[in-house]
Amino acid sequence: MTDRTTEQKVAEAQDAALSLANLSDEARSGALHDVADAIEREAEAILAANERDVTEAERLLEQGEYTRALVDRLELSESKLADIAEMVRSVADRDDPLGETLSARRLDDGLELYRVSVPIGVIATVFESRPDALVQIAALSLKSGNAAILKGGSEASHSNRALYEVIAEATADVPDGWAQLIEAREDVNTLLEMDDAVDLLMPRGSSAFVSYIQDNTSIPVLGHTEGVCHVFVDRDADLSMAEDVAYDAKVQYPAVCNAVETLLVDERVAEEFLPGMVERYREAGVELRGDAAAREIVDVDPATDDDWDTEYGDLELAIRVVDSLSAAVDHVNTHGSKHTESIVTEDSDRAATFMRGVDSSSVFHNASTRFADGYRYGLGAEVGISTGKTHARGPVGLAGLTTYKYHLQGDGHLVATYAGEDAKPFLHESFEGEWAPGHLVGESD
Amino acid sequence: MTDRTTEQKVAEAQDAALSLANLSDEARSGALHDVADAIEREAEAILAANERDVTEAERLLEQGEYTRALVDRLELSESKLADIAEMVRSVADRDDPLGETLSARRLDDGLELYRVSVPIGVIATVFESRPDALVQIAALSLKSGNAAILKGGSEASHSNRALYEVIAEATADVPDGWAQLIEAREDVNTLLEMDDAVDLLMPRGSSAFVSYIQDNTSIPVLGHTEGVCHVFVDRDADLSMAEDVAYDAKVQYPAVCNAVETLLVDERVAEEFLPGMVERYREAGVELRGDAAAREIVDVDPATDDDWDTEYGDLELAIRVVDSLSAAVDHVNTHGSKHTESIVTEDSDRAATFMRGVDSSSVFHNASTRFADGYRYGLGAEVGISTGKTHARGPVGLAGLTTYKYHLQGDGHLVATYAGEDAKPFLHESFEGEWAPGHLVGESD
Repeated sequence: MTDRTTEQKVAEAQDAALSLANLSDEARSGALHDVADAIEREAEAILAANERDVTEAERLLEQGEYTRALVDRLELSESKLADIAEMVRSVADRDDPLGETLSARRLDDGLELYRVSVPIGVIATVFESRPDALVQIAALSLKSGNAAILKGGSEASHSNRALYEVIAEATADVPDGWAQLIEAREDVNTLLEMDDAVDLLMPRGSSAFVSYIQDNTSIPVLGHTEGVCHVFVDRDADLSMAEDVAYDAKVQYPAVCNAVETLLVDERVAEEFLPGMVERYREAGVELRGDAAAREIVDVDPATDDDWDTEYGDLELAIRVVDSLSAAVDHVNTHGSKHTESIVTEDSDRAATFMRGVDSSSVFHNASTRFADGYRYGLGAEVGISTGKTHARGPVGLAGLTTYKYHLQGDGHLVATYAGEDAKPFLHESFEGEWAPGHLVGESD
Repeated sequence: MTDRTTEQKVAEAQDAALSLANLSDEARSGALHDVADAIEREAEAILAANERDVTEAERLLEQGEYTRALVDRLELSESKLADIAEMVRSVADRDDPLGETLSARRLDDGLELYRVSVPIGVIATVFESRPDALVQIAALSLKSGNAAILKGGSEASHSNRALYEVIAEATADVPDGWAQLIEAREDVNTLLEMDDAVDLLMPRGSSAFVSYIQDNTSIPVLGHTEGVCHVFVDRDADLSMAEDVAYDAKVQYPAVCNAVETLLVDERVAEEFLPGMVERYREAGVELRGDAAAREIVDVDPATDDDWDTEYGDLELAIRVVDSLSAAVDHVNTHGSKHTESIVTEDSDRAATFMRGVDSSSVFHNASTRFADGYRYGLGAEVGISTGKTHARGPVGLAGLTTYKYHLQGDGHLVATYAGEDAKPFLHESFEGEWAPGHLVGESD
């Protein structure tokens, strides 16, 4: 296996992707249940492999090269493996994202056009230390009928190889080569150049890492770089609600991308709102900075220009007092990362102006930014969050790993009939109908 | 105007894009009707500018540097301008692609999530000689609420500038700077690097030109490179229908990307089918090539390996005899360009196998490949055809120039309520509902 080049592995994945598109949901989901069972059955071998990675990581931690957080992310346990197996089963049990008729249009009598959801093809992921990422991405790819190229971090190489082998063995009935493991760092650069063969890239990891991938490939990338999210307390806000929303948005879980980083407050309510808010944040241990106007009201450190562009990812927050709704919108569009913003106001027109005005994938009215998440949105297993504006935006579910095909069913229809002087007009009527997919591989009757 | 840099122009377009998102359909469509009227009113000035381009192009034609086809594409006339104005009016009168609620989900009582269509932002187009491309792209961009960066070919520079000025003047009520003209070739390279500012690139022109753009930017590209389309005559085909479909697919208009280039014929019907088919093609002046098996039946030139990968774009066609349906699918996936393929068969199971098996954006059963087109599909004005697999695929209508935003309406909802030991469960109920967009700029009551 190790003697195959990255090009060969990707070519195998391309071949497999063509067959995967013909595999029934039953076969894809069944294989995923087999993967879940195998992970639990092979727990001992997986944990032994993981132990080797953890030992090496702890050595590097002592030398100051790794952080404790990295070692924690790396470490698997019996209960973590059970969670991973459960996650695979929940992906398996989602509705089939494939073969759905997205629209149907009658072009003329007997000439029917169906837009049908299909897999994208070959999806490559490059992820950092968490070995559970490998399993999650493989599961999401298989459920959506895509071949997966998996490249994990070298710090998790033994764990990744063990998990990959369990997955490959458990999916022996799935077209061979559907999942490929890439191990060397230099192979990533090969991958980034294979824009004819790889249809989508999903990097997972730090903002800097995702940016690096985006800047070095012309393959479409699904991922998010930063989450500089805002809560705006409007002049017409219910201030008690505003305090709860702004508190939840920061304190409930500060390490994640949908936590608020900058609190914007209308100057007409700042004096009434800020003292209580600041006291509540302080009790939770939030480190605060503010602009000059905020510091006239509350005693916080001065914010620098850099603060407005910073994703703290921690119990830190910057406060800015603005003189209008439009100043708040301008601040968000200048300093935000197009992720998630929330306005707190009792005036629904002002809410609509804010929501239309800010160029972000999720815009909220009277709700915490922390709701921006695939699970909370009801999308099921989350593929990732996208800050790109094409293909899929915001929290992305399995549907983000699909594209569509046009199926045209005719009865010998010719374009010549609809062209020239005596051109027959098209009907172009939408209708409710499903393209009948015929028999799929692995389907029981 | 000429002293502004490309960076400044793009920054102005970015600002304008934010306001454009708040412009009512009434205002966008009204501005487009003004553009159409202005093009007709200013016909004389536009034609005078065009005349300068045509004179220069004819000089270069005499020197053998330009082709007659290029000069023809370049040349405008009173009636061509009337057609262009009509095209602008038809774009104006399409349904509004913005503000549509694509899905609505109740996360909990009073917490409603809406997915709403919005503009993408800044769309840049780089196109070759046809000056009507500038008007079409500007119209499609404005209708869909996007700012447009327009870069035409230097051979059409006077025409493009005249058309651009007419458009800019007629849209004075639209946020300033929404359309920007880029004129120098070196500015294209600047543009290709501005992936933080430009959200989508739409190159128009030859395959080589589109490939060049794709290979030199990390901005998402909407375009198609090649159209190597296939018709497969199955063993169970109605051979008379097959002859009509294969004829129409090549002869009706051979210069376009959805014309067939390779005819695949099952060996079980080749002897009966090919002689009549070849005779009919010959009468239409189609130059034919075939593989060894085809040449045992009909007297055509030998096809080389290159033929299978060639987009002739002319009255030329390659014929290959295959021994099975799966051999036909393999040929298409190996040599095709993921554009459009058609199977002619009376067996709907075999049709479904072909349609699922070939990895192309449009797959037809008993219909000519020439139907693959936005107008025939009923999408209205065609933005382009995409051979990419993410964002939009196949013929793309105005919806391809939109993305979506999640709007969450709450009443002070906090994530803390739904987390931890006493977590309240989500409802996650889909419902029929429209997000109320509030008042838009330029809307009458």
